[in-house]
Amino acid sequence: MGNATMTVQQVLIDGHWTASAGTSTFQAVNPRTREPLPETYPISPWSEILRAIESASRAAAIVRDWSGDRFAAFLEHFADRIDARAAELIEMAHQETALPVQPRLKDAELPRTSNQLRQAAAAARDGSWTEPTIDSAPNIRSMLRPIGPVVVFGPNNFPFAFNSAAGGDFAAAIAAGNPVIAKGHSSHPGTTRILAEEAQLAANETGMPAGFVQLIYRTNHDDGKLLVSHPAIGASGYTGSRSAGSQLKEAADRVGKPIYLELSSINPIYILPGAIRERGAAIAEQFATSCLMGVGQFCTNPGLIVLKAGTETEDWIRQVGERFSAAPVGTLLGPSVQSHLESGFRTLVSHGATLVTGGSSGGGTGYCCQNTLLRVTGSQFISSPAALQTEMFGNASLIVVVESDSEFVGVTHALEGNLTGSLYTANDGSDDGLYDQITPVLRQKVGRLLNDKMPTGVAVVSAMNHGGPFPATGHPGFTAVGIPASLKRFTMLQCYDGVRPNRLPTALADQSPTSSLWRLIDGCRIQGNVPTTK
Amino acid sequence: MGNATMTVQQVLIDGHWTASAGTSTFQAVNPRTREPLPETYPISPWSEILRAIESASRAAAIVRDWSGDRFAAFLEHFADRIDARAAELIEMAHQETALPVQPRLKDAELPRTSNQLRQAAAAARDGSWTEPTIDSAPNIRSMLRPIGPVVVFGPNNFPFAFNSAAGGDFAAAIAAGNPVIAKGHSSHPGTTRILAEEAQLAANETGMPAGFVQLIYRTNHDDGKLLVSHPAIGASGYTGSRSAGSQLKEAADRVGKPIYLELSSINPIYILPGAIRERGAAIAEQFATSCLMGVGQFCTNPGLIVLKAGTETEDWIRQVGERFSAAPVGTLLGPSVQSHLESGFRTLVSHGATLVTGGSSGGGTGYCCQNTLLRVTGSQFISSPAALQTEMFGNASLIVVVESDSEFVGVTHALEGNLTGSLYTANDGSDDGLYDQITPVLRQKVGRLLNDKMPTGVAVVSAMNHGGPFPATGHPGFTAVGIPASLKRFTMLQCYDGVRPNRLPTALADQSPTSSLWRLIDGCRIQGNVPTTK
Repeated sequence: MGNATMTVQQVLIDGHWTASAGTSTFQAVNPRTREPLPETYPISPWSEILRAIESASRAAAIVRDWSGDRFAAFLEHFADRIDARAAELIEMAHQETALPVQPRLKDAELPRTSNQLRQAAAAARDGSWTEPTIDSAPNIRSMLRPIGPVVVFGPNNFPFAFNSAAGGDFAAAIAAGNPVIAKGHSSHPGTTRILAEEAQLAANETGMPAGFVQLIYRTNHDDGKLLVSHPAIGASGYTGSRSAGSQLKEAADRVGKPIYLELSSINPIYILPGAIRERGAAIAEQFATSCLMGVGQFCTNPGLIVLKAGTETEDWIRQVGERFSAAPVGTLLGPSVQSHLESGFRTLVSHGATLVTGGSSGGGTGYCCQNTLLRVTGSQFISSPAALQTEMFGNASLIVVVESDSEFVGVTHALEGNLTGSLYTANDGSDDGLYDQITPVLRQKVGRLLNDKMPTGVAVVSAMNHGGPFPATGHPGFTAVGIPASLKRFTMLQCYDGVRPNRLPTALADQSPTSSLWRLIDGCRIQGNVPTTK
Repeated sequence: MGNATMTVQQVLIDGHWTASAGTSTFQAVNPRTREPLPETYPISPWSEILRAIESASRAAAIVRDWSGDRFAAFLEHFADRIDARAAELIEMAHQETALPVQPRLKDAELPRTSNQLRQAAAAARDGSWTEPTIDSAPNIRSMLRPIGPVVVFGPNNFPFAFNSAAGGDFAAAIAAGNPVIAKGHSSHPGTTRILAEEAQLAANETGMPAGFVQLIYRTNHDDGKLLVSHPAIGASGYTGSRSAGSQLKEAADRVGKPIYLELSSINPIYILPGAIRERGAAIAEQFATSCLMGVGQFCTNPGLIVLKAGTETEDWIRQVGERFSAAPVGTLLGPSVQSHLESGFRTLVSHGATLVTGGSSGGGTGYCCQNTLLRVTGSQFISSPAALQTEMFGNASLIVVVESDSEFVGVTHALEGNLTGSLYTANDGSDDGLYDQITPVLRQKVGRLLNDKMPTGVAVVSAMNHGGPFPATGHPGFTAVGIPASLKRFTMLQCYDGVRPNRLPTALADQSPTSSLWRLIDGCRIQGNVPTTK
């Protein structure tokens, strides 16, 4: 908590950076030094959140019928501004998260972030993903249109690419034509502040209304629930812990407000016997690299490895254990990540898991835990599936050693929903029969199925699915990454029945607004105007 | 409750018509005579529901990778069988619902139902709506695929077109590749039984597995909640009362199982001053016809009329009142519809509504209420918006008389989500300014916006949206009517990342399975194969 003599950072409400009405404050912590960082940030009271909602609502009414070009212009100006202020952003994010400057922040995450904004801009310009559909004889027309103000809750682990004021949900909500209220993550408020500063400047440059982009840093839990369920809010996007997310989900669900959540995923990896035999050492290296990269703090971190009992598997586990022990221990994002990880170790051990290596805090700089590998048998896993699927967010993974092919399938049946599932199989086809037993079960439990690779790379391409059944997300039909599909989350289906021509959105007019827009007209997918002779 | 000596109808579980394990039974009632119909139906216990879930789960695993052709063949055989058994179906539905044989059941609803099944078959064959997306360089591919067994809860008011064993949700779930567990509506079990008999015969003819279509007639409330939240269920579709639907929604939401609901809609109609002046009498006739058709028992029944105070409006209300008084009183679907309608009258009157005409039960044959018109002022409506939006499902409507243009907008702000919203405006443009004030607010609250027409016609065309914000439905991004869009509800997004070519769904292979399938390949929408030179 701060005191009155400190300078408290301002919130961005209704187009202006203004002093918060909040009396409580917080500071971020440098995870490497465990010391508070100098800036002090406000916790916004409900009155302030309500001002943001009202402003966003006014902004939504102003921009609702604007063409995609205008949102694209904003997104592109913002992307350019982020690139121009990269050095300061990277330094601030490094201080707040301890993520390495290179290659992570500078070479990977920051370019990805501005690239996402530019991809979203291109999708906003094109508009074909809004699925304009026209039945000309009855004069019924429909398309996906902006859902209204979107609240974005960013996670701790991607200070740029999933930032509430610049990341994937932000880009998708804006490209779909909606204002955003960003709720920054408390672990990197300074990074979020700089991004929101640039967003506001880009909004001014491109003529967006006040309230198009707003930022609050923190709310209490009850106010968060009121926010996502407020009648003037269109939808919310949340990436973070399962417990906080579940509370927001319940509040939003009760009043039928869409909320897109990314909660928890342990990303099972199956390494079938032939693959271990054929290229076990190479897979061990891939796995250790994938699990320890970014100190394992990825939604798609491989947290569960399923292997068949045997000499080669014991050798493989030993190899991986050695790699884990030998690898440097990275600094975690903050104290709560460390404490959750330690708590995860305890939960797993209390349900029968044994340590291969690691298992304690420490071993590195600042907040950290040893690189940790645990193991259980298949039958143990099947007996305590909920506890043994506790997400260990960080540099840790659980190995499940099964006794038989049917236990491979049994473990798969016991899995909750996940973002990803990977299978490594032999190139000579010797694992194919087992693959065919596991995959039908696994396929329905994961958003993305991989062959012969680790899931930590999430390419920002049209076919990506960063989603999956609960608790990975709240609805398996949507993705948080991949453009244009991720934009659809922030739309509603709007039909125009017998509506007079001058009152239609331009994308539903007889004359197509662009030559590139794809529309479904009288059952045919075409670019161009509604045919005049029918 | 039945007794042991009665013949109890069988449930359809795991491919066989079998005696229910249930010990409680129920009978439908003829709404015209208020006498029980002769057939006795079981209330299925949880053990029986669980057998259905397990069988559906096995069926889902068998059919998951089948081509759309096979689902299409089933749907078409079933449609033909419905048409062939039309006379018996119509007679049974007439007995159970009191809906008129002609034109309603014979000329409108039955043909619509078989037509929907055939449209769904065509969509299953085409498959373009599954949005196959391929990024060839990284070898990432995705599409919408079957979500798993679907539970369909049918409503009371469409014994064919929304029947759990033949209606829109059924057709959509099957065309998307999923088995269906039909939970029949207790008011027309005989109609549902005949439809399920034909579905099972069509399933046998077309080689569908046991458990592909199953039927239970009734469950207790707790078992219904267990059913929609069971891990083996993919999704549910529910059309019915807000109270029962909200309970199912809460249970499904808690475990992240998609449930598509259609709960409550009062379908506001705005008749602006110029339109009243220009063609008030014609609109009065349209309104009375629309509100009293099918005894008003449509989800899209015009339940709220918003008018500007004035002499012409008073004259219009008088005309409509006379039409309501003069029109014959139809028979309602059953005792609960009558009691809910009476309860609706009481709620509205207790919140200040006054009767223009009607307001009591009786006036016709069997279960019935007088054709009823109530009125309130705009300020009354704005003071008690929740109570005055109580759905009066049946032959009743509430008129809101506003004093000013701003009160038109104020009433609109006070509305909950609805399936539809209609505006009648003058042809001479004199209402256009007011239209432009009301529509931006109304547009975000309704799934379908209409000009100069009543919403009761729901055309089964691609651009139809039978959906809207809560409480009209549970998510404003989906529609229950309109093919192919309605099919998407029963899919999940599945991505294949680096998956070997022989393991891909055919729709994601380099070589397109058909020449007609549209795919998004490397950012371009094309029909045909993945281009070989890149």
